[in-house]
Amino acid sequence: MIGVVGGLGPYAGLDLVRKIFDETDARTDQDHLPVAMLSVPASIPDRTEFLLDKTDVNPAHRVADLIRQLESIGATVVGIPCNTVHAPPILDIVLADLAEAGSTVKLIHMITEVKHWIEEEHPVVKTVGVLATTGTCLAGVYKGVFESGGLAAVCPDEAAQQDVHDAIYDPAHGIKAQSGPATEQARKALLRAAQHLRERGAEAIVLGCTEIPLAITESELEGTPVIDATRVLARALVREAAPEKLRAEPGG
Amino acid sequence: MIGVVGGLGPYAGLDLVRKIFDETDARTDQDHLPVAMLSVPASIPDRTEFLLDKTDVNPAHRVADLIRQLESIGATVVGIPCNTVHAPPILDIVLADLAEAGSTVKLIHMITEVKHWIEEEHPVVKTVGVLATTGTCLAGVYKGVFESGGLAAVCPDEAAQQDVHDAIYDPAHGIKAQSGPATEQARKALLRAAQHLRERGAEAIVLGCTEIPLAITESELEGTPVIDATRVLARALVREAAPEKLRAEPGG
Repeated sequence: MIGVVGGLGPYAGLDLVRKIFDETDARTDQDHLPVAMLSVPASIPDRTEFLLDKTDVNPAHRVADLIRQLESIGATVVGIPCNTVHAPPILDIVLADLAEAGSTVKLIHMITEVKHWIEEEHPVVKTVGVLATTGTCLAGVYKGVFESGGLAAVCPDEAAQQDVHDAIYDPAHGIKAQSGPATEQARKALLRAAQHLRERGAEAIVLGCTEIPLAITESELEGTPVIDATRVLARALVREAAPEKLRAEPGG
Repeated sequence: MIGVVGGLGPYAGLDLVRKIFDETDARTDQDHLPVAMLSVPASIPDRTEFLLDKTDVNPAHRVADLIRQLESIGATVVGIPCNTVHAPPILDIVLADLAEAGSTVKLIHMITEVKHWIEEEHPVVKTVGVLATTGTCLAGVYKGVFESGGLAAVCPDEAAQQDVHDAIYDPAHGIKAQSGPATEQARKALLRAAQHLRERGAEAIVLGCTEIPLAITESELEGTPVIDATRVLARALVREAAPEKLRAEPGG
């Protein structure tokens, strides 16, 4: 069974589950893979706030608890649809907690999967623009993983990154406040930031916050490939759970 | 925590969870209610096939197992986004299994909630058209519940019901095979059936199969109110879990 740690945010969790279904070769209900999603957002401190030292509470412990709960009802492979959780100060603690608890779950690393995806699908790309939370950018989540593959990760400059942060978090127009559908203001800010990343040399853009695909659904922007990290994670989860059911072509 | 028995079908489970989020008054991740969804479709026989005697395996036992699993990770109030499961030959066994297992979960009855909704929101309506699976119609799922409230439930005639069945189940154009988005063929068949129900005297139409709101998202059709049973269930779950968080106006 595939386990999904939802709630980070809630709609991003749903988006991953939808993409797991979309990427599964299925014609009847019974063809679909077993999936459990736990969305318990109130108990998980904001990941970016932790990375920016605005809270001392590491969300890792709660995330590890949720993974253990998913395991208790049968999950064997788990995905966390939140890029910021993959920052080493958080993810390392999740992994340590799981090891200490004797967990045998296979946790899929979303950022590593994105690196493999770019290497396989876009082999000429060497510089990747990252649209993500300020926490993901400052913690170098993509930079750290990409370096080992000879890929460069570029984030927006400070002013442009503030616009991206607002597009995600603003209590009026941000995606976490309004995502069904996302506001035009959030979408436009993200498109401007994508253009800014291209000007900084990005040959591909990663949607590196799981809220962003709720506003940007294009697979390319003016010829630049757009990589949806949520969809890449969905495909990795299906591949691990039942490789024969992975759709040949990405769905959507 | 709200528990959702997903997988009946998979996208209908997701649709309920999305509507739980939509009906919650929330501006940040942390404002959202805890929700667990278990989608294990392969182990649950088709509900209509059981009601039509095409299989002896009552899906009730597996549904009760899943509710127990949701309870084991903290669910206290549970919804089953599948109208056909609410047929007494299935639901009565679910309830008996839960009682025998000592479950203390509060299971929300979707059809009763729809009856209350119509009584409160559409008090002049006396005859309700039901767009549902053949199993739901033949088992009189809505008829049985509505009678106690003085409401009449009308289903399509046999030929029109066959078209509804195909819109849900057809392996090429049916919603269970293709729901992201649903096909125009499925949508048109359902709209024709809705018109047929109006001709049979329906003053409101219930989308009484949780696949149907994936194809019909209108809140009225040519002036006739359309009641989405999934959204009614979502609101009932939020109300039970945290009444102060229920949105005043239905979202969408």
